[in-house]
Amino acid sequence: MTEEQLQALLHEMTTAEKVGQLTQFAGAFYSEQEDSTPVTGRIEFPVEEDMIKESGSVLGVAGAMKLMGIQREHLKKSRLGIPLLFMADVINGFETIFPIPLGLGATWDPALIEELQTISAKEAASAGLHISFAPMADLVRDPRWGRVMESTGEDPLLNSLFAAATVRGLQGKDSLIANDRVGACVKHFAAYGLAEGGRDYNTVDLSERELRDKHLPAYKAALEAGVKLVMTAFNTVDSIPATANSTLLRDLLRGELKFDGVVISDFGAVQELIPHGVAENEAEAAKKALEAGVDIDMMSLSYAHSLASLIDEHMIDSTFVDEAVLRVLQLKNELGLFEDPYRGVSLEKEQTVVGHPSHLALAQTVAEKSMVLLKNENVLPLDKQTSVALIGPYADNQDLLGEWSIFGKTDQTTTLRQAVQKQYTHAIYAKGSQLYERDEELLKEAIAAMEQTDCLLLALGEGKDRSGEGRSRSSITLAPCQIELARLAKETGKPVIVALFNARPLDLTELEPYADAILECWHPGSEGAKAVVAILSGKVNPSGKLTMSFPRATGQIPVYYNAYQTGRPLPPGSNERFFSRYIDIPNEPLYPFGFGLSYTSFGYSNRSLSSAKWDGSGILTVSVDITNIGEVKGDEIVQLYIQDVVGEVVRPVKELKSFQKVSLSPGETKTVTFEISHDMLQYYHSDLTFASDPGQFRVYVNGSSVCEEENTLTFSLVKS
Amino acid sequence: MTEEQLQALLHEMTTAEKVGQLTQFAGAFYSEQEDSTPVTGRIEFPVEEDMIKESGSVLGVAGAMKLMGIQREHLKKSRLGIPLLFMADVINGFETIFPIPLGLGATWDPALIEELQTISAKEAASAGLHISFAPMADLVRDPRWGRVMESTGEDPLLNSLFAAATVRGLQGKDSLIANDRVGACVKHFAAYGLAEGGRDYNTVDLSERELRDKHLPAYKAALEAGVKLVMTAFNTVDSIPATANSTLLRDLLRGELKFDGVVISDFGAVQELIPHGVAENEAEAAKKALEAGVDIDMMSLSYAHSLASLIDEHMIDSTFVDEAVLRVLQLKNELGLFEDPYRGVSLEKEQTVVGHPSHLALAQTVAEKSMVLLKNENVLPLDKQTSVALIGPYADNQDLLGEWSIFGKTDQTTTLRQAVQKQYTHAIYAKGSQLYERDEELLKEAIAAMEQTDCLLLALGEGKDRSGEGRSRSSITLAPCQIELARLAKETGKPVIVALFNARPLDLTELEPYADAILECWHPGSEGAKAVVAILSGKVNPSGKLTMSFPRATGQIPVYYNAYQTGRPLPPGSNERFFSRYIDIPNEPLYPFGFGLSYTSFGYSNRSLSSAKWDGSGILTVSVDITNIGEVKGDEIVQLYIQDVVGEVVRPVKELKSFQKVSLSPGETKTVTFEISHDMLQYYHSDLTFASDPGQFRVYVNGSSVCEEENTLTFSLVKS
Repeated sequence: MTEEQLQALLHEMTTAEKVGQLTQFAGAFYSEQEDSTPVTGRIEFPVEEDMIKESGSVLGVAGAMKLMGIQREHLKKSRLGIPLLFMADVINGFETIFPIPLGLGATWDPALIEELQTISAKEAASAGLHISFAPMADLVRDPRWGRVMESTGEDPLLNSLFAAATVRGLQGKDSLIANDRVGACVKHFAAYGLAEGGRDYNTVDLSERELRDKHLPAYKAALEAGVKLVMTAFNTVDSIPATANSTLLRDLLRGELKFDGVVISDFGAVQELIPHGVAENEAEAAKKALEAGVDIDMMSLSYAHSLASLIDEHMIDSTFVDEAVLRVLQLKNELGLFEDPYRGVSLEKEQTVVGHPSHLALAQTVAEKSMVLLKNENVLPLDKQTSVALIGPYADNQDLLGEWSIFGKTDQTTTLRQAVQKQYTHAIYAKGSQLYERDEELLKEAIAAMEQTDCLLLALGEGKDRSGEGRSRSSITLAPCQIELARLAKETGKPVIVALFNARPLDLTELEPYADAILECWHPGSEGAKAVVAILSGKVNPSGKLTMSFPRATGQIPVYYNAYQTGRPLPPGSNERFFSRYIDIPNEPLYPFGFGLSYTSFGYSNRSLSSAKWDGSGILTVSVDITNIGEVKGDEIVQLYIQDVVGEVVRPVKELKSFQKVSLSPGETKTVTFEISHDMLQYYHSDLTFASDPGQFRVYVNGSSVCEEENTLTFSLVKS
Repeated sequence: MTEEQLQALLHEMTTAEKVGQLTQFAGAFYSEQEDSTPVTGRIEFPVEEDMIKESGSVLGVAGAMKLMGIQREHLKKSRLGIPLLFMADVINGFETIFPIPLGLGATWDPALIEELQTISAKEAASAGLHISFAPMADLVRDPRWGRVMESTGEDPLLNSLFAAATVRGLQGKDSLIANDRVGACVKHFAAYGLAEGGRDYNTVDLSERELRDKHLPAYKAALEAGVKLVMTAFNTVDSIPATANSTLLRDLLRGELKFDGVVISDFGAVQELIPHGVAENEAEAAKKALEAGVDIDMMSLSYAHSLASLIDEHMIDSTFVDEAVLRVLQLKNELGLFEDPYRGVSLEKEQTVVGHPSHLALAQTVAEKSMVLLKNENVLPLDKQTSVALIGPYADNQDLLGEWSIFGKTDQTTTLRQAVQKQYTHAIYAKGSQLYERDEELLKEAIAAMEQTDCLLLALGEGKDRSGEGRSRSSITLAPCQIELARLAKETGKPVIVALFNARPLDLTELEPYADAILECWHPGSEGAKAVVAILSGKVNPSGKLTMSFPRATGQIPVYYNAYQTGRPLPPGSNERFFSRYIDIPNEPLYPFGFGLSYTSFGYSNRSLSSAKWDGSGILTVSVDITNIGEVKGDEIVQLYIQDVVGEVVRPVKELKSFQKVSLSPGETKTVTFEISHDMLQYYHSDLTFASDPGQFRVYVNGSSVCEEENTLTFSLVKS
């Protein structure tokens, strides 16, 4: 349709029809086949037949035949023939499941993420979906929060690159969304990742500068990539729930950031303005949300019950409604729904596309690149002939797809046991314990198994029942029964390798001494188990690097690499009292941001800057020689960090500004060059202008966020 | 002196003399008797003779003869005869030590705090001191922070009342400070209590509304009580260190809050603007601090080295210097130092005043009122005839004065063992373990002792070496060796009573099931051990209530009673997923704010409001009948909380608005009435105006911050 046709359509609509476009209900209300929404908990409220009939979009249901059926029935009843939008959480894959986003972050490979999101979109679109609620661009620092799994970590730059890549992968690059793509929805605007105490849905409090400096960049990157929708956050920003926050949505998002797509609330969030304590009733909730800038009310009855009467009683400016409806119609139009409400979907096409072998192959590749080798005391890789005992509650466990794998096939997922026994044909297996509980019988079997082989491979971790939305935990250690298994394994004196399956940074301080090697496997997706074996066997050399710090203790939270400088920074190695520190543990996390081992080692030399003085024009070049000083080929993620030594306000101790992945054969050296541009030195000053400071900058180039003082480069920015 | 004379004096001063008034060095630079500053760590820097000669104030040294000597020597050298100011940390007593401030908070008795600070001032003044760095008005929520001991807790109202009481107690109520008083210095401006991760000196980030709503009230209360000095915080506020923050100091503190006294930096904080990354060098640090509003540079050389040349080179407006110097001179004048630089001090007077028996008696009374009975399963009080084994590393330990007891006499402090054996003459003692480490021999002795008596009294806790400045901890549990003692005690089947000595809320989840009674004794001061025995024996019925929540786990931090409402508040008793909660522990702390048991019980009945509708004029009255339904006389702290159900912004789930302590004999009933005034309903709206919202308010009256839903009162505020 043309813009004029859309306007004409809007003009024809009754108030009830308009309000319908602004409401979204779960699939269960549309299809008798769907008796519950498995993802976010069924909200038990009565939805009248008319509301369903007029509604504009449907949540959380997929499948070509099912959605075609719902669409067909809907169009029969719709006076103006406006098709439904189908939206769902397709986060790390539709049926072909890739690693959880925290694992995707560890690839440091935005192009790869774009590629897998293209696949993800293709599968989702073939199953009739139009919109995916991805990317989540929330910056995270608190591993207690269950949703850290859905983020790519603690760094604004990486989160920005991944958010943009996800948008491009899902939507493609055109304004019109092709039939094998879906619209993207960046979430949760804004700063949901700062939920206090890591407790989901909790208060967020931060300064505007912190919001702009650390949190906004990734949402902005998604906007710049053309994302079609923005989802509001459950939390407050400056004491006002994001869903009713007009400073955030109308002034910042629509005004300053020029977003003209659809703003959708999170699940039930409009109605929740009542318990949140900023609305007395549904009508006030609806008024506040719409006025703030929320177009679609997801899974609450506030808009459905109240918007019409608010308009009738002139309690709300009807322009707000018309603008919102027009944006929804425009989105439908961009998806081509007016021309083909089914977008070329067919059962046959779905069956051909979904779970295609090439998709699964990519899933394995991504999983291999996502895994992070945290420790390796000369025990990995494991020769094919090694006699291995595979032990642990994650060994024969199909819970590898992660919390958001709604459409994944857990029951068809290869377990680590199956993958290991294919490679190590004589490997024996013992479960050892339940996932979180001790089991005397299982333990006995495991102890017996430990006796029989030369090498012990433990599969430990926590399942999706401990991660995702509404699953914050006060404790982030492994279950004691798993620690016990590791301790007993260590006591045999045999090499102990731990493959860890989990969806948050864990406190591994207790586990670490019991393991000779630790491979962080995340929840690795459909082909994850095969990827683990490819790494353990040395077929693939691990290259992933953490994008979220692993704290040394729960009591160290939050710990993140790009913290602000203090006035009393602890000198390296110091144990003195009057510095910013804990007296019982070091300041450093157990495993820092940017860290990850390889089966080879990389030497860094000849770090140099093109100039020690710079006026900020053009570029400044940093170069470094990277040498593979080990025995096998490997990939290294070379990282560039900059510190503004003296700022107009206090600046982070370092900030990631660029990175490159290099592939090196044994003995090979490559020179890596980075270009520093002036915008990399800018930040929000106290008057919120975006500017740089003259003076000294430190430059760190290394294979993690930790860099020795002696390898620091410095330059001066001289303002001309 | 008159104001004109002060102006004339200022006019006579050279730049060097002016700068001198704005510097403060530790006592060690003035007196050979002082070879180090025990409190904050000697900063090893060269101070030239001239700087000492011209300096205006001295830090951290006391004693009549010593200070008279320093003053005498100084006046000999001072061209204009300007006396020195002597300042020190006299926090919870000078030589007579009262409980740590966190314990003082638990008395809920501002009048008592005023009384003890009067004593504290009297002792300090008799020892030659002029200024005490109290009150600390920082609101605290993170027990990892070592300085929570120095705060009165997590509530803005209580902190305000205590801060004001401390100022009145130290200074008296007149503008001129009598010779038996000292000037007060409220600290740390502002929001130091929010140091991220509870790590001392760390970044603070918060919104302006949170600053005004929760943090500013207590500082403001001190200002309104006439406090003479304000100390800046080590942390950033809105990314700028408080010590260089002109928005905070010049606009807010001096402008809006009309403070015209002396602003002093914290120890070394001006120089620390360099490592903090907002100043390149001393000169820039000095310029930024002075321009922001810092009058006195405590223990750094920035002002001493740089102010004079900054003035000479017209890099700084000399009016800033003159204003700062005048404020210092005014303070000296208000202390009467120009008339009598010794303020009537003499060795004889000091010896008469310091440690006077009446002071010690008050110290015991205060300690008794500060202790909080956390648990009591019918084991306390203990009859005089009970056969008791006193066990634990805190039993015969003189470390009862707390971290700030610089001038207290630890070696003269009665231990619990001495106090117990006086009351329970046959009590036996075994140490059981070192404070933090297991000791097999000691453990054996303790196990043997446990066999011999009917009742086990454990003295556990952590010493001052785990609390105070620069002593943040990632773990807040008792040492494992102490938990082991408690477990072994419990296994005897005998009643186990735990007396806890510590300076932060601890995670007592592991200890709790091993104890039949727990008495929180804090670091209780000079007469603390006697106070413990008075309570254990039933001579005194405990009445203290917590003013800081005791978390259930480190991973529950921060947990505090006046948190903001979320959109998904967990319904009581619910275990469902999609609410704001941790999936592994309840949301409630182990011991909540306002909680504390008595040897009797109090029944609350007939809660009523004078009206269900109110236009905000005059007062609304709440009344409740409190009945002593137990067997002994007791004091109850009756607490009034209000919740604004629907605010213009999200409001706390409840806020303490008033409280009263009532004394009741067994069977006695008293009616307690509270007056609700309109200002209690006001808060900072989104435009930062201070206003109330019409609509519903909930009123809770109870003996703790926990109140059953069915006992809630409600009223509507109807705007006329």
